[in-house]
Amino acid sequence: MDKKQALHAYIKEELLKRIKSGEYKVGEKIPTEHELCQTFNTSRTTIRTALNQLTLEGYLTRQQGSGTFVADKKVKQTLSNTVHRYSDQVKVQGKKPEISLLSISVIPADDVLQETLPVHTNDPIQRIERVRKANDEPTQYEISFIPWSIAPGITQHHAETSLYRTLKETFHIHVAKTTEHIEITLADERLSTHLKCEPGLPCFYIETVAEDSTGKKVEYSRSYFRGDKTNFMIERNYPHREEE
Amino acid sequence: MDKKQALHAYIKEELLKRIKSGEYKVGEKIPTEHELCQTFNTSRTTIRTALNQLTLEGYLTRQQGSGTFVADKKVKQTLSNTVHRYSDQVKVQGKKPEISLLSISVIPADDVLQETLPVHTNDPIQRIERVRKANDEPTQYEISFIPWSIAPGITQHHAETSLYRTLKETFHIHVAKTTEHIEITLADERLSTHLKCEPGLPCFYIETVAEDSTGKKVEYSRSYFRGDKTNFMIERNYPHREEE
Repeated sequence: MDKKQALHAYIKEELLKRIKSGEYKVGEKIPTEHELCQTFNTSRTTIRTALNQLTLEGYLTRQQGSGTFVADKKVKQTLSNTVHRYSDQVKVQGKKPEISLLSISVIPADDVLQETLPVHTNDPIQRIERVRKANDEPTQYEISFIPWSIAPGITQHHAETSLYRTLKETFHIHVAKTTEHIEITLADERLSTHLKCEPGLPCFYIETVAEDSTGKKVEYSRSYFRGDKTNFMIERNYPHREEE
Repeated sequence: MDKKQALHAYIKEELLKRIKSGEYKVGEKIPTEHELCQTFNTSRTTIRTALNQLTLEGYLTRQQGSGTFVADKKVKQTLSNTVHRYSDQVKVQGKKPEISLLSISVIPADDVLQETLPVHTNDPIQRIERVRKANDEPTQYEISFIPWSIAPGITQHHAETSLYRTLKETFHIHVAKTTEHIEITLADERLSTHLKCEPGLPCFYIETVAEDSTGKKVEYSRSYFRGDKTNFMIERNYPHREEE
């Protein structure tokens, strides 16, 4: 690793510290490239590399002609729709939550759905496509699949409030367990349209399977979150055991 | 969204299905660009866009001059070092686990560490820098911080087996709770050296704080995982409650 490479990583780290500590505040303009060159006694290229990375990671936003600003904080989310509902999570952070329904349709079960849900070929599945927003900014694009046999006739109103709540209150199904798989994917054009970002932006991709208390699979979903705007929190407790 | 954009997303999806279903097997060469053009009746540009995205996401690898192959499966990991130890997780997938210690040093607590751990300015903190591997391929780069006052004198042997086990067996500290924050970051040069990837690759970045049963914070760590090689699984059970 040569010295120049180490240097811009150091500068990135240093700027990140200033953002996280609040020395540089949300919405505030940070020093110009020229000023940063002088502060760190380094070249414009090095400074730009650090600023570009912080921009791609969602800590800074650059506005053509007017400079570089500290971006709005990432939306913190706990991983799980059940424990803390989306709207509660977002409200706590002082933002306005909203769920927009893009479409509800009934589709025949394909191979993937048959492997995942307790259905046979061509059984009817409700496909519910939604975007979640915080302060009018999209944070999550989600496609849920719920077999017709499990919860027939899900409505727009159900989809725009909470599907898990609907399962419980309307269909008396208690989601007792979820299994989530998390990967990183790059936004394709469709996703970038829904999440209002550039194509190619790294995003979280989460597949979730929800089961009722008998182990029957009741919902399968695919969710996408902007990587530059999302911070997931996972809390876990471990019982004391002799063997680990 | 124009039709051409939709098309490569469709082709990507279709190829992904073939990989996930095992129609295209791990290590196998997939059809050439030319053949795929004919199969999907589309242009080379469209096929290339789909292949490039799948390569960046870690499903395919391209070998100069010899073609495009199905990449080795992503390393599945449960989120949490305690419940299932790294080595057990990796072994289950038929891979050889290994932890390489890069460095152990004692550093004075800085602002960030003071905010996170129960220490004062300049208190000695052990900084343990490690790379985890599966079949000799690096999967995780990790820096752990453990106050000297909590577990003095952590050794190379401790670091190369399990820190949580060391805390328990040598220092009688039971990790009772962890809080993890997950974000996406881009590999800088240092990280790309440790994870043997291109700079700029999207990676998972996880900060973990571990507490003992009295709520005292005993360890803070920063971990980085290659985005193209990692699939996290989170299982959760929800007690039945009337109010949600």
